[in-house]
Amino acid sequence: MAGIKVHGIPMSTATMRVLAALYEKELDFDLIPVDMRAGAHKQEPFLSLNPFGQIPALEDGDLTLFESRAIAEYIAEEYSEKGEKLFCPGCKKVKAATKVWLQVEGQQFDPIASKLAFERVFKGMFGMTTDPAAVEELEGKLVKVLDIYEARLAKSEFLACDCFTLADLNHLPAIHYLMGTDSKKLFESRPKVSEWVKKITARPAWAKVVELQKKQ
Amino acid sequence: MAGIKVHGIPMSTATMRVLAALYEKELDFDLIPVDMRAGAHKQEPFLSLNPFGQIPALEDGDLTLFESRAIAEYIAEEYSEKGEKLFCPGCKKVKAATKVWLQVEGQQFDPIASKLAFERVFKGMFGMTTDPAAVEELEGKLVKVLDIYEARLAKSEFLACDCFTLADLNHLPAIHYLMGTDSKKLFESRPKVSEWVKKITARPAWAKVVELQKKQ
Ligand SMILES: N[C@@H](CCC(=O)N[C@@H](CS)C(=O)NCC(=O)O)C(=O)O
Ligand SMILES: N[C@@H](CCC(=O)N[C@@H](CS)C(=O)NCC(=O)O)C(=O)O
Repeated sequence: MAGIKVHGIPMSTATMRVLAALYEKELDFDLIPVDMRAGAHKQEPFLSLNPFGQIPALEDGDLTLFESRAIAEYIAEEYSEKGEKLFCPGCKKVKAATKVWLQVEGQQFDPIASKLAFERVFKGMFGMTTDPAAVEELEGKLVKVLDIYEARLAKSEFLACDCFTLADLNHLPAIHYLMGTDSKKLFESRPKVSEWVKKITARPAWAKVVELQKKQ
Repeated sequence: MAGIKVHGIPMSTATMRVLAALYEKELDFDLIPVDMRAGAHKQEPFLSLNPFGQIPALEDGDLTLFESRAIAEYIAEEYSEKGEKLFCPGCKKVKAATKVWLQVEGQQFDPIASKLAFERVFKGMFGMTTDPAAVEELEGKLVKVLDIYEARLAKSEFLACDCFTLADLNHLPAIHYLMGTDSKKLFESRPKVSEWVKKITARPAWAKVVELQKKQ
C-alpha cells in the first residue's frame, strides 16, 4: 500500500481543509511540500497531479485527486469506518441538508470569506497592502451570510444537523484566519455563530492542523 | 405524495440546472414561478424555502432544498433508478473523478462563466451596459480553464469518465448562454471542448429545458 500523500503546505487554506479531514479520520499520510515561491505548482511534475496548478493534490495509492472539497469528501466516504464520521448517518432529510450546507460553504461563504482573508491576512504576508474599501464591502456581504447562519444554528447544533459534518469542517480554514483579524467581531457578535466557531475550532483534529502550521 | 415542486424561472441558470436534472430523470414536477421583479425571492414565503433569497428552491414531499448543485445531486441520488444515470456506476476511480470535476465546475468554471454570461447576456436584459474590459479579463481566464478541459476531454469522452454525469450537466446553463454570444469562439476553437459542448447541449433533457424557456 503506497499510502496517502498530500501535496501542499500547511499555510494554504485549501490544504488545511484536506489535513483536517485526514486527522478527523485518524489516517496516516505524508505531507509533501510544494515550493510555491519557486513556482513548483505551475510546472511538472505538479501539473500532472492538478492541471489547474493549485494546491492541494492528493494521492491515495494509484488514485490522484485535486480540489480540496472533492478530496475531503472522498476521504470522508472512502474511510467512512475510520475515526470520526464526517457525514451524519441520519435520515434522508439530514443527508439532503448536508448537501445543501456543503454547497452553501462553497458558493456563499467561501467566495466572500476567502477574499476577506486574502485582504486581511495574506496580502500582508506577501508584502501587499490591504484595501480598506474591499474589506468594508466584503464584511458587509459576510454579515448577511452570518445572519443566515445565526438563524440556522438556532435550529440545529451544527449546519447540517446536530452532528459535526464535512459541511462544518469545510469552513475551518477561512474561519481560522479571520478569527486572527478584526473581522472576528462579525463572528463573536452572533451568539450561535460564536458558539459554533468555538466548537469546531476546538476539535482535536483541527488543533493538529494548527500545530502542523506552527512547525513550518 | 405531494410531488416535486421547483420554485424558480426557466431563464435562471441555477434553475435550469435543476430542470435539466429532473428531465434527465424523467420526473414529473411543478415549476412554480417566483416574481423576481416584485422581489418575491427576498420575502416570505420564499425566504422560508431559501434563506439566501435566491432561486431555485426545491420541495420534494416534506423536504426542502436550495443551492442548485445540492438539488441536482439529491435528484441524481434519490432517483438513481429512474431515467438516465447521472453518476457513472463505475469504479472507485470514476467516483473520485466525478467528485473532482463537480468541484471544478463549481470552483473554477462557474465563477468565470457566470460573470461572463452576466456581462454578455444578462446586463443587456436588465438595461445595463456590458463592460468590455471585464469581458476581456474574464475571457482571458476562461481560456485557461478551457485549455485544461481540452486536455481532459482528449483522455475521456466526458469530464469524469466516458459517461455523461452530473459534472457535465452542471455546466449546461452557463454554456447555453455563452454559446449565444461572441464568447462561443472560445469553445468552438477547441476541438474536444467543441465536441463535448455539442454532445451535452444535444441531450433530449436539455432540449426540454430550452423549450420551457421559449414558452415564457
Ligand atoms: N478550489 C481549489 C482552490 C485551491 C487554491 O486556490 N489553492 C491555492 C492555495 S490555498 C493555490 O494553490 N494558489 C495558487 C494559484 O492559484 O495559482 C481547492 O479548493 O482546492
Ligand atoms: N449558488 C446558487 C446561486 C443561485 C442564484 O444566484 N440564483 C439567481 C438566479 S440564477 C438569483 O436568485 N439571484 C437573485 C439574487 O441573488 O438576489 C445556486 O446554485 O442555486
